[in-house]
Amino acid sequence: MSDVKRINVVKIGGNVIDNPEALERFVCDFAKMSAPKILIHGGGKLATRLSEKLEIPTRMIEGRRVTDSETLDIVTMVYAGLVNKQIVAKLQAVGCNAIGLSGADANSVPAVRRSPVPVDFGFVGDIDATKINTGFIAALLNAGITPVFCAITHDAKGSLLNSNADSVASSVAVASTAIAPVYMHFCFEKIGVMRDVDDETSLIREILPKTYIRLRDAGVVSKGMIPKIDNAFSAVEAGVKSVIIKHSDNLLSDIGTVIRL
Amino acid sequence: MSDVKRINVVKIGGNVIDNPEALERFVCDFAKMSAPKILIHGGGKLATRLSEKLEIPTRMIEGRRVTDSETLDIVTMVYAGLVNKQIVAKLQAVGCNAIGLSGADANSVPAVRRSPVPVDFGFVGDIDATKINTGFIAALLNAGITPVFCAITHDAKGSLLNSNADSVASSVAVASTAIAPVYMHFCFEKIGVMRDVDDETSLIREILPKTYIRLRDAGVVSKGMIPKIDNAFSAVEAGVKSVIIKHSDNLLSDIGTVIRL
Repeated sequence: MSDVKRINVVKIGGNVIDNPEALERFVCDFAKMSAPKILIHGGGKLATRLSEKLEIPTRMIEGRRVTDSETLDIVTMVYAGLVNKQIVAKLQAVGCNAIGLSGADANSVPAVRRSPVPVDFGFVGDIDATKINTGFIAALLNAGITPVFCAITHDAKGSLLNSNADSVASSVAVASTAIAPVYMHFCFEKIGVMRDVDDETSLIREILPKTYIRLRDAGVVSKGMIPKIDNAFSAVEAGVKSVIIKHSDNLLSDIGTVIRL
Repeated sequence: MSDVKRINVVKIGGNVIDNPEALERFVCDFAKMSAPKILIHGGGKLATRLSEKLEIPTRMIEGRRVTDSETLDIVTMVYAGLVNKQIVAKLQAVGCNAIGLSGADANSVPAVRRSPVPVDFGFVGDIDATKINTGFIAALLNAGITPVFCAITHDAKGSLLNSNADSVASSVAVASTAIAPVYMHFCFEKIGVMRDVDDETSLIREILPKTYIRLRDAGVVSKGMIPKIDNAFSAVEAGVKSVIIKHSDNLLSDIGTVIRL
């Protein structure tokens, strides 16, 4: 099916998107990274700022934002439109033949609208990695084209959906293991998982399942990191070779926290 | 290079985009149309409404809108984001495997920023049909995927550009003649070119170069239609088999004005 020998799947978060200089550096590094590769990006604060300017109220339930119809339009405009196309244009300028995709495009990432019971979060889509269109992704990679996914998906019944960018990234990574061995890079604003978040020398270079249990039990891993690490372990358990959690400036270096089995 | 025998290239204007019922009907008809096919869509009034809500002033020079940086962001959000992805999601729901594209995606439609001399219209891109990535378009069509283009292009130097949707449509159609014979359908809110715009029985079924000269000289063709017909003749002169100007409700019928050599 494929000439592809190894796939790098990279996720960048909103902090990189919101910082033009960091984004510029990241784009140049990503272009230099060995292909085949796939980028998944979060949204950043622009959608929130746009909602505020348009005076669309933000509804929160249990601390989580509800994606009503107006909010879905905003995130579609910002994530699938502005952010996605700006990243693609920047990548094209530095020699990376990128293509921007929502999950609706070529039915690449179908999702299921989350049940309104017990809590209706609106147009939120959960992804099943087995439904991802890996044939299409493989064809792009074989043609030397780099997919750039935003976190907008669709229900295949005509509605767009807002998905979690980390979940899109893990699902795309897991699905791509059907094409070739996959290595994931979760880029954010820290150099990785640290014993002391204020001390970069306390970086933990590797977390295996047994060390993760010890770190959690000892309270070393901060609460905010737990979903990221859990997500990483789900990915490696589903076949991804390794996940490295790293600073977006360190994309091309091996400084970070490697999560593997 | 290609198994494709005939390509239908369809353009829909802003009037269809702005009318949810007309868009729904059009999407269902377009899905039924024989493939391979390509859709190009205009923007509609949503970008103007969004600019107004955000109090971004519209600058006009010689009756034409200037695309400054803020306006470029707006049209990118609306055309490449909301409108494009909504159309793609609707097409997916009715069995058409669509993919939404800006010109930056896979460098499909590169453009050149219009010279700021004598008039600086801002981030406006002119297209050269010979630069269009026909290899990529052919690969999609051969894979049974239907490209859906918005009129956002890029300069291949990192900047997105705002292009004219009619020009994107003609350029894509002309470039696609390298793949297979191309038939264009320009859909708008009238049934075609009429001798009397208020009388549908006065529809002109066919315009050839010599009859066009007569119609223009006699003042039969209204001013607003002249750029559309000129554009259609440029396309057929560059190798498109025929262009039919028709109502968006008549996509699957042959009612309309055929422009050919």
